[in-house]
Amino acid sequence: MYNMDKLYEAVAQRGHVCVGLDTALEYVPEKEHRSSAAGSVLAYNRAIIDAVIDIAACFKVQIACYEQMGINGLEAYATTLKYLRSKNALVIADIKRGDIADTASRYAHAHFQGEFEADFVTLNPYLGMDSLEPWLEYADKKGKGAFVLMRTSNKGRNDFECLKLGEGKRLYDAVGDKLTELAATHSGKCGYGAFGAVVGADPQSPEEREEAAAIRAGRPNLFFLIPGYGAQGGAASDAALLLREGNGGVVNASRSIIKAWQNKANEADYAAADNNFAAWAARLAVLEMRDEILKASGRAK
Amino acid sequence: MYNMDKLYEAVAQRGHVCVGLDTALEYVPEKEHRSSAAGSVLAYNRAIIDAVIDIAACFKVQIACYEQMGINGLEAYATTLKYLRSKNALVIADIKRGDIADTASRYAHAHFQGEFEADFVTLNPYLGMDSLEPWLEYADKKGKGAFVLMRTSNKGRNDFECLKLGEGKRLYDAVGDKLTELAATHSGKCGYGAFGAVVGADPQSPEEREEAAAIRAGRPNLFFLIPGYGAQGGAASDAALLLREGNGGVVNASRSIIKAWQNKANEADYAAADNNFAAWAARLAVLEMRDEILKASGRAK
Repeated sequence: MYNMDKLYEAVAQRGHVCVGLDTALEYVPEKEHRSSAAGSVLAYNRAIIDAVIDIAACFKVQIACYEQMGINGLEAYATTLKYLRSKNALVIADIKRGDIADTASRYAHAHFQGEFEADFVTLNPYLGMDSLEPWLEYADKKGKGAFVLMRTSNKGRNDFECLKLGEGKRLYDAVGDKLTELAATHSGKCGYGAFGAVVGADPQSPEEREEAAAIRAGRPNLFFLIPGYGAQGGAASDAALLLREGNGGVVNASRSIIKAWQNKANEADYAAADNNFAAWAARLAVLEMRDEILKASGRAK
Repeated sequence: MYNMDKLYEAVAQRGHVCVGLDTALEYVPEKEHRSSAAGSVLAYNRAIIDAVIDIAACFKVQIACYEQMGINGLEAYATTLKYLRSKNALVIADIKRGDIADTASRYAHAHFQGEFEADFVTLNPYLGMDSLEPWLEYADKKGKGAFVLMRTSNKGRNDFECLKLGEGKRLYDAVGDKLTELAATHSGKCGYGAFGAVVGADPQSPEEREEAAAIRAGRPNLFFLIPGYGAQGGAASDAALLLREGNGGVVNASRSIIKAWQNKANEADYAAADNNFAAWAARLAVLEMRDEILKASGRAK
């Protein structure tokens, strides 16, 4: 059984929200600061995780936020992953690695077993399919999964990802073609491949909405990790364009969840939350997001 | 002054060799093992660095080799970088990062200041130029440099990097075009931009040799980090295709240097090296490589 089957099941049960723990010290309320930056982030992550675990499909941990705090930060990263896995939460390590085979093996070892073990990773395809193969071994051995960058949610995607190839396709289509082949030979019970794709939800124009719909229709066996929601501007209806039969993707939001407390003018409103108002604000943000996407995807009214 | 100017100067003085510290425990002679894997790697790195520092243009440290050892490994990584910088060696952190702007800022903070500070990093362009901008701020502020993946040395480069675009160019040309623009606005005294490119040296055919020569001729303001030499199969004459007027690039070799001791049948040959025979083998490998490339590039006979 692939982790992608577990994720499919989680989406069926709990909706599409992927909670992004891109936790930086400045996102943690001052009164919840501990003696160190890394300690503050770790404690905050635990509080957020506890508050949303029953309504999140999965969690995504952005390693850059921890790497910027050095060794202590990476310890907080490892401990966050361990905490999530101890709670049987599904964890995506957002590491966007991409390197040649020998090096990729070492990265795969680092992130699919040992201290930094995650259930899924994000990968960058630029170097080609041989850079993905060492990761795929862990799909076979341990059910691990990956989301490979296809069409991201930033403006810069037009520089390379969206370039037109000779045959009229775009670069991200070529990536999608290879991932579709790979999904065919590593297909989960849920009908999606062990490795899926990162496809951003933030169409800027009617043309881009059509493009998103075409990407979804053309890739029935790719499960999508969908960034761009919330702080990055995407709406539930945009994300829903990339879902399929009410499943087939998780929608990530980070800042709009972990910084939700900053939008709450009145702390007193959260007295019921036993002072843990940031975690409560996060829960409210996840609930709202979950329900909006369930509605937009046709799973709720 | 950009670090790229310092690197240009180093190449002029000491040749083109970039020593790759892709140090895994299995590359360290058993009799040099310490109590921990990370400790063994760190001690080995120090010995190699001391043995070759006067004949290397720079060093490249592949973070994957350290990440696979977890937190202890990353401590060894940080300490290796610190040791190199204390010796005024130029250090390329081979991290191949690529992420959207906010995240890229965090990575740039991690690798251009603080515990993991390096002089250069390697970057992946897939997400577009906005993913490079936060790194470029450190070129302005601190002279930092980067090598952006353009055309790598692995077979998989044919999957995406070498795809033909509508206008007859290849994807790596589009990356090269953007980097050329960027070099024009961030140009060092040496004539090369603050950010260069990774271009692999291992032409498999006469056509690929022509391609390499064309890449070099078409990018006069890009300094190249050239992998693929040695264990990966590239020869000095292949690497020289990517150099320019005897400078303009550093040629990386990792395993052929740090594992050079494994090719020496007789340890007794290294008695003169005071038992530190692996470091001596590394020095001999660097000397040979340096001289071969100086010859192939026309700087020596």
